[in-house]
Amino acid sequence: MDIVCIGSGNVATHLAKAFKASGARIVQVYSAHLLNADLLAQETSAQAIADLAALNREADLYLIAVKDDAITTVAHALSGVNGMVVHTSGATPMSVLSDAGIQHYGVFYPLQTFSKSRDLNFANVPLCLEAKDADDLDVLKSLAQTLSPLVYEIDGGQRKILHLAAVFACNFVNHLYHLGGEILAEHQMDFEMLRPLIMQTAEKVQAALTIQVQTGPAVRDDQETMKRHISLLENRTDLQEIYKFLSKSIKKTHS
Amino acid sequence: MDIVCIGSGNVATHLAKAFKASGARIVQVYSAHLLNADLLAQETSAQAIADLAALNREADLYLIAVKDDAITTVAHALSGVNGMVVHTSGATPMSVLSDAGIQHYGVFYPLQTFSKSRDLNFANVPLCLEAKDADDLDVLKSLAQTLSPLVYEIDGGQRKILHLAAVFACNFVNHLYHLGGEILAEHQMDFEMLRPLIMQTAEKVQAALTIQVQTGPAVRDDQETMKRHISLLENRTDLQEIYKFLSKSIKKTHS
Repeated sequence: MDIVCIGSGNVATHLAKAFKASGARIVQVYSAHLLNADLLAQETSAQAIADLAALNREADLYLIAVKDDAITTVAHALSGVNGMVVHTSGATPMSVLSDAGIQHYGVFYPLQTFSKSRDLNFANVPLCLEAKDADDLDVLKSLAQTLSPLVYEIDGGQRKILHLAAVFACNFVNHLYHLGGEILAEHQMDFEMLRPLIMQTAEKVQAALTIQVQTGPAVRDDQETMKRHISLLENRTDLQEIYKFLSKSIKKTHS
Repeated sequence: MDIVCIGSGNVATHLAKAFKASGARIVQVYSAHLLNADLLAQETSAQAIADLAALNREADLYLIAVKDDAITTVAHALSGVNGMVVHTSGATPMSVLSDAGIQHYGVFYPLQTFSKSRDLNFANVPLCLEAKDADDLDVLKSLAQTLSPLVYEIDGGQRKILHLAAVFACNFVNHLYHLGGEILAEHQMDFEMLRPLIMQTAEKVQAALTIQVQTGPAVRDDQETMKRHISLLENRTDLQEIYKFLSKSIKKTHS
């Protein structure tokens, strides 16, 4: 399987390396910045290109892993290729590919947060697939199964919802970690102290349901503690608001 | 070291078992409900009691791990003992112990979330200690070091702050996991799909700083995606509010 990787960011890097490790050949890596393309190309024994006109048009798979607003431009550059073209975006409909005149198209959305600096075991990455054509979907499924046992068939509507849920369970969660660290820093304590708690909080819901393991003053409706917490935040009205909103939401969930 | 464990909940259970494993002797377990005391007493080869008047008054350490509003009652029952008396509460001042006429007192606050059903490695539990007397503090430190290398000297003001920060980094985080799951459930998808993302989000901040690994539409100031997400939540105005508040807070942090 010959793959052209379009993009050189976090998702592109992890996917290209995982595909290579699973036996595929990465023939090209494209990035508008040749240096970035080159970095990933070297790691995957591919050719680096910075010009969409230089795209190899004989590959089996074109993996578009660029910023959402650049997908359409890339798709148009791939118009008429015979290989399968997929994008990796949670928030972008599959139709941007068909609208660009691509024959075999689909979505290959990894529901995970990626950092270049962190190795990732793809066995733990849910791969959410969509294709219009049943044969194309089969190809995607076979391909996905070489990377992960967690393969889901997800339509565009569900994918948008997954992306939204991930904002809550990942982006907002990281920000709450951050706010916890800010609260400590204002009192000469280090974020380091919260790390074990953060790990355990994530580990607890790997087997249990969130509703079973909710703790804290809001779920106990412990008004005294909540009042004290809100007054401790008196110089951070922004955090007071977040505290009140989330406590109210916890109480509502558990009432 | 002879320890009397007062309480039989999550914290009491984990601490009593950890102390026993580290070589201490649990002489008694108290709970207002004898059956609960008995359960933990059997696991730690201790005597179960349900009457504070039956407390052994010759122990070296009295570990108070009961609900915050019960600490004062227990403290008064321990008035005049020679052993050290500590409570394990993040939100309770040390003075409730001295006010009750206890001579050697302190706080032994484990900054972690506990479930009885989940084994816990105390090596990953920050133990936050406070004592007025320097010798008492040394005793507590030696004791804490038998359980964990993460031993901190924390005063009452800082402990309240730690407890507050833990609400953000644990209680609120678990609730955001829950809301993510609710969003999926409304569209016939399972919380299961979010578990790998939740683990990775926690793992990322074990080595990095939260500010370095923040992702999502808010930190990119991706107005289009945020607008779409808010409209996807049109039948959940409560989640719309949380989305807007947290996105605003992320933008503020990263501006």
